[in-house]
Amino acid sequence: MKDEVFFGEGMAKVKAEYPDLYNAIVGLNEAAYTGKVLDYRTQKLIALGINAAASDDRATKKQMMSAMKEFGITKDEIVDVLRMVLLTSGMPPFTKAMRMLYELIEK
Amino acid sequence: MKDEVFFGEGMAKVKAEYPDLYNAIVGLNEAAYTGKVLDYRTQKLIALGINAAASDDRATKKQMMSAMKEFGITKDEIVDVLRMVLLTSGMPPFTKAMRMLYELIEK
Amino acid sequence: MKDEVFFGEGMAKVKAEYPDLYNAIVGLNEAAYTGKVLDYRTQKLIALGINAAASDDRATKKQMMSAMKEFGITKDEIVDVLRMVLLTSGMPPFTKAMRMLYELIEK
Amino acid sequence: MKDEVFFGEGMAKVKAEYPDLYNAIVGLNEAAYTGKVLDYRTQKLIALGINAAASDDRATKKQMMSAMKEFGITKDEIVDVLRMVLLTSGMPPFTKAMRMLYELIEK
Amino acid sequence: MKDEVFFGEGMAKVKAEYPDLYNAIVGLNEAAYTGKVLDYRTQKLIALGINAAASDDRATKKQMMSAMKEFGITKDEIVDVLRMVLLTSGMPPFTKAMRMLYELIEK
Amino acid sequence: MKDEVFFGEGMAKVKAEYPDLYNAIVGLNEAAYTGKVLDYRTQKLIALGINAAASDDRATKKQMMSAMKEFGITKDEIVDVLRMVLLTSGMPPFTKAMRMLYELIEK
Repeated sequence: MKDEVFFGEGMAKVKAEYPDLYNAIVGLNEAAYTGKVLDYRTQKLIALGINAAASDDRATKKQMMSAMKEFGITKDEIVDVLRMVLLTSGMPPFTKAMRMLYELIEK
Repeated sequence: MKDEVFFGEGMAKVKAEYPDLYNAIVGLNEAAYTGKVLDYRTQKLIALGINAAASDDRATKKQMMSAMKEFGITKDEIVDVLRMVLLTSGMPPFTKAMRMLYELIEK
Repeated sequence: MKDEVFFGEGMAKVKAEYPDLYNAIVGLNEAAYTGKVLDYRTQKLIALGINAAASDDRATKKQMMSAMKEFGITKDEIVDVLRMVLLTSGMPPFTKAMRMLYELIEK
Repeated sequence: MKDEVFFGEGMAKVKAEYPDLYNAIVGLNEAAYTGKVLDYRTQKLIALGINAAASDDRATKKQMMSAMKEFGITKDEIVDVLRMVLLTSGMPPFTKAMRMLYELIEK
Repeated sequence: MKDEVFFGEGMAKVKAEYPDLYNAIVGLNEAAYTGKVLDYRTQKLIALGINAAASDDRATKKQMMSAMKEFGITKDEIVDVLRMVLLTSGMPPFTKAMRMLYELIEK
Repeated sequence: MKDEVFFGEGMAKVKAEYPDLYNAIVGLNEAAYTGKVLDYRTQKLIALGINAAASDDRATKKQMMSAMKEFGITKDEIVDVLRMVLLTSGMPPFTKAMRMLYELIEK
């Protein structure tokens, strides 16, 4: 399940051309998303917070989309993540991620 | 409650000398930790993930200590946060935070 | 005054939907731009330097536009900020910000 | 003059062993600190803001010391710089730099 | 030679308007790319790794293009650089750079 | 071989307590250091450049030590890496890494 959630289209090419690298990424992904102590949802929210704090547009957008679609994470839950981004990382990553969230919702 | 959790000793001086700045920080902190949609524990885990991913030693250590002490967050829950740090931010912030976690626990 | 200078359109929605968060941001903004010891212009130049050094495209562009429009900051003053960006943060953020500056001026 | 202000002890070795690199750094430093459009003090404050925002402990400390010693920059001016750091980059770099400032002043 | 490789079009304007800054950048560039101990190719690969790890899209793309065009660096060599990016900096900068590489090659 | 080169002492505990995580890290490390297209030495230099550019003290120091000890990488080769750090990332990470290099050599 996690594969479809996590990997973008680019990974299909990596799988075909660099299988050793692909396997390592699958292994890394599985060891990251354990869903045992913390559940997947919480881990997803953490990954979203880290990507938004790092002002990584594309990764933030991908995380927001799969958070809403695959995990049923709500807009207000994402805003709660972004509150931590504001506190720890300041206005620019916060406003950028808020704008991105509104764009995703209005679509 | 959140004040004691969040603010270090340095904030006492800010309060005395720059009350406008102190009040803004208290307001920011309260707007960040709402504990409504996501609970405090989850927000704390997110903040910890962001600080560890940013390789911010002092902030990571403070977050880990208050996570364990104030919120009863366990070692394995912190490791689950750090799994996301490894996935999103690579080996150096992960190994740094793991070492810090072991040091805190062994004390 | 500072509101119009600082806040983008996205903030209107935050104000309507998350008034506690909006108020905290207004408070933060007011405590940040004091205009007492250093004047607004100098603080603006510092914020511009920080955003450009962090390679934050959108924040840099917004800061440049409001710097020129609201504060009458000149192109050569911005170049002087970017000289510090080059020194402290290297070629990529410098060339990116210079290109952005030329685009803004030529429009 | 700018040499003594800017360069730490490590640069003496670079000068002796890698003169081409040293000369490029001197040239870079001179082109950065022009003191023409913006004065040195303002450029110094910008560099301090960038280093503090990037959570670079050592560079921040060096900038604070030379700002106070060589340019007569006051504690309140530095706090005004750190207000921009709080706004643009969040609590961890702000609290770290405030603590550093208090340590420098109390010595 | 290195000038054409390294400098984008924006630099022509810097040369015309800010010759002191331009000369410092040329000096910096020459002191950086020595091609003596490590050869140019290796230095180029290092610069590419740094830019990709910092998730700097534009700089990464420019480095990839000049790496392939000017230095005959192959796709598999760039993938080997990106393996280090994955290890040191995590999935988001890795997947971003891989996608960019595939786009460049397919054009 | 790569295990001893790459992993610090902290990894022994990860191996004992979180074997799934440990195995993923070993797999990641093996997929990163292929030594096929680019040799290990070059990949090591790239990792060193990335860590130094990110101002990650501990990771930079570890990379420098294993670079010199395990791969026979010379001081001048490391300086050539740091030239790229200066160009792409500015003075603070460069001077920090140069100081670290001198400390390692003088010991």
